[in-house]
Amino acid sequence: MFDKETYAIRRKKLTEKIQHGLIILSGNYTTPFNYASNTFPFRQDSTFLYYIGIDEPGLIALLDTDNGEEYLCGEEPCPDDIIWTGATPTLAQFADMSGINKTINYNQLQMIISKACNKGRKIHFVAPYQAQVSITIGNLLSQHVEKLKSIQSSDLIHAIAEMRKIKEPQEIAEIERAVRTTAIMEQFVIDAATDPACHESENSIRAALFRIFLKEGFFYSFPPIVTTHGEIFHQPFASKERLQKGKILLADIGAESGSHYAGDMTRSVPVGGKFSPKQKEVYNIVLEAQKTVLEVAKPGETWLNVHLAAARIITEGLKEIGIMTGGTDDIINEGAYAMFFPHGIGHLLGLDVHDMENLGEDNFGYSETIKRSHQFGLCNLRYALELKENMTLTNEPGIYFIPYLMQKWKAERRFADFINYDKALKYSDFGGIRIEDDIVITPTGCHILGMEVKKEF
Amino acid sequence: MFDKETYAIRRKKLTEKIQHGLIILSGNYTTPFNYASNTFPFRQDSTFLYYIGIDEPGLIALLDTDNGEEYLCGEEPCPDDIIWTGATPTLAQFADMSGINKTINYNQLQMIISKACNKGRKIHFVAPYQAQVSITIGNLLSQHVEKLKSIQSSDLIHAIAEMRKIKEPQEIAEIERAVRTTAIMEQFVIDAATDPACHESENSIRAALFRIFLKEGFFYSFPPIVTTHGEIFHQPFASKERLQKGKILLADIGAESGSHYAGDMTRSVPVGGKFSPKQKEVYNIVLEAQKTVLEVAKPGETWLNVHLAAARIITEGLKEIGIMTGGTDDIINEGAYAMFFPHGIGHLLGLDVHDMENLGEDNFGYSETIKRSHQFGLCNLRYALELKENMTLTNEPGIYFIPYLMQKWKAERRFADFINYDKALKYSDFGGIRIEDDIVITPTGCHILGMEVKKEF
Repeated sequence: MFDKETYAIRRKKLTEKIQHGLIILSGNYTTPFNYASNTFPFRQDSTFLYYIGIDEPGLIALLDTDNGEEYLCGEEPCPDDIIWTGATPTLAQFADMSGINKTINYNQLQMIISKACNKGRKIHFVAPYQAQVSITIGNLLSQHVEKLKSIQSSDLIHAIAEMRKIKEPQEIAEIERAVRTTAIMEQFVIDAATDPACHESENSIRAALFRIFLKEGFFYSFPPIVTTHGEIFHQPFASKERLQKGKILLADIGAESGSHYAGDMTRSVPVGGKFSPKQKEVYNIVLEAQKTVLEVAKPGETWLNVHLAAARIITEGLKEIGIMTGGTDDIINEGAYAMFFPHGIGHLLGLDVHDMENLGEDNFGYSETIKRSHQFGLCNLRYALELKENMTLTNEPGIYFIPYLMQKWKAERRFADFINYDKALKYSDFGGIRIEDDIVITPTGCHILGMEVKKEF
Repeated sequence: MFDKETYAIRRKKLTEKIQHGLIILSGNYTTPFNYASNTFPFRQDSTFLYYIGIDEPGLIALLDTDNGEEYLCGEEPCPDDIIWTGATPTLAQFADMSGINKTINYNQLQMIISKACNKGRKIHFVAPYQAQVSITIGNLLSQHVEKLKSIQSSDLIHAIAEMRKIKEPQEIAEIERAVRTTAIMEQFVIDAATDPACHESENSIRAALFRIFLKEGFFYSFPPIVTTHGEIFHQPFASKERLQKGKILLADIGAESGSHYAGDMTRSVPVGGKFSPKQKEVYNIVLEAQKTVLEVAKPGETWLNVHLAAARIITEGLKEIGIMTGGTDDIINEGAYAMFFPHGIGHLLGLDVHDMENLGEDNFGYSETIKRSHQFGLCNLRYALELKENMTLTNEPGIYFIPYLMQKWKAERRFADFINYDKALKYSDFGGIRIEDDIVITPTGCHILGMEVKKEF
């Protein structure tokens, strides 16, 4: 947690932007595993962390934008809880950590909200993603949970996103801590997989990563992906078979710092230590695309243009090795490159690994002038607007050979002028390569966060 | 997953017990971490696993007890999902794995249920513990989520519990696998903590345990407790400080097998390798209580009596070292021993570590003749009824010195005739000792599951 001034200042800025009505900031609940009292680790809502900072379940903050009053709503701990879970602060002590001086219980909160509703005051909230929060907010507003999305406050979403997308120095320091632990995890993957005598499996490497981030007192920012099937983007499965020499092991992993800032890195590593010439060719294209991002990304440039600059490098590289053919501009404009690079060049990074995804990417990542593309691949770009100083993002180009997609598009003769399917299908057992670092936008460009992790094999 | 016959037979038994109406068995959903698509590992509902076996989110089974028809309800995978998560079976393929031959979507399910409701047929379901399941069941039955508990089917709960509480041989084999991995984890704790040059912390040992169970492709059955504050039962915190020689490290940990059966063991270990004479005295009482359970537990005996037999050993032991005084029968009857042993002697173990806790312990652990005690401590006994062959339980006596409780009771002069507070308070920095193994009830007694893990230090 930062000092209480930080949260008070952030809340002041937020209420000034909203001007009228009440703001509900709901924290998360613990979620049951297989019965109510056996739970997953608690993860606080990121917006609640940003404005309130208290890392405890079952809390709701209420901000009155008209008179500046702030309330923290929750249950008081029961004295005998000390036997089961040790001593915990009182609600007032928690509130004080965040610079809030009024505490209320759920019934009091309900009364304040009812009164405000009766007076026709606007109640601002963000539609919850956690079902228990939906139930609570639905009850507070006397609305069916499935209606909440349609009555959430677009003003509140924009105000939150505008603040959260530019990071404070103390936030960048926290992201850097998360990235540093992520780098240690990647280094473990590299050492294990490049060992010519490697006896590890995808699963055993993945298991070892948990030890690394948990030892720091950290968690993961997303479930670690450790796979020789890099062409499956969110591969949920990690094989217990011994890694096969000659394969490419892709590890897309992220630690989350104790204060819940995310790291997110990917390395694609030759099992046994050396890429084949065929692998190396593709790898070098991805590496060049990644370097291009570092050159292009700077304040004033749009992230969409950065994406397209990387797509250009990938296109030209694939043309050079004979997998694509035709005019680079046409390939880019029509989106044919997305067969091999079907995701965005990167995303905002912060308290969430896909920062603020729950607020709706279109609400902060696109605008009236830059609208989300309908093109396959480019439609997955999570942020497209201008870069500004102190934004933090991932830089993660990739090239993948997805047998399902190659066969389907070939059958449809899709982009037959641009894609050499006979050549591409020879890469059907290639897998995929992605190289990912985290960057911060500086006054004149950008730089990589955390420490350098080997990228040349 | 077991073979499909297993599930078909179990469902047939269940529907025969229920006789009339529809049974809804709802599977779980994945639960979000910090936004909808960033989720905790999926954990299927245990009752769904028992009768259906399919380890996938978002499924509902419907059993018609009148005509024997069985339906699996879910969404078909979208073909392009293959790019993101790899190939997945179709709904019909999933259904077939469980021996179900009809698949329906959510709207069809809703229609079947509406029709049954209109005809006045009984709809049997268990009140959900997962909020998203509550929302779904609430919508299906047009009921507010908070009403579900009051209209759940007591018949269904009893029928399920009657079946799940006696384990099939293949279930016992799975529990044994989980216990075996749990034993490897405990052995790690013992080796780390008893090393005279120990550099580990509670947190670093806890982190290492994740590597062990994840490497097996297992998960935990509950969040591991690794603490030198054994007197805090569900200590959520693991210190990053180096372990202090002379402390007792309590590790209450459990692996969950790939098929989701739980292990649950505790060892209390001298940091540095040797107990002090004072620690050894208390430890030996707990060890004797644990051995007593092994002698007493057998078919026909109630688990309540087993608890009381262990309580007797603990009482006599504490009298011997001067912490308690007075008549053993009185101490037991009045519950004074619970100051130092404030939890039950053990609980049922199976697909849940506290098996079937979500069904309500009073529904299967107590009866008209054996009602839950209101006594401090004994009220925490999770199961009290007769033992039967092939029940699996934990055997976990403990002695704890809880400063908060000792000070409070002393001030209240509670049980002043039985507790020597001056002596007891000298143990204020002692912590707690618990020793836990998992047992199965045999035709003539019981035996410990898994492999023996060191208990003598």
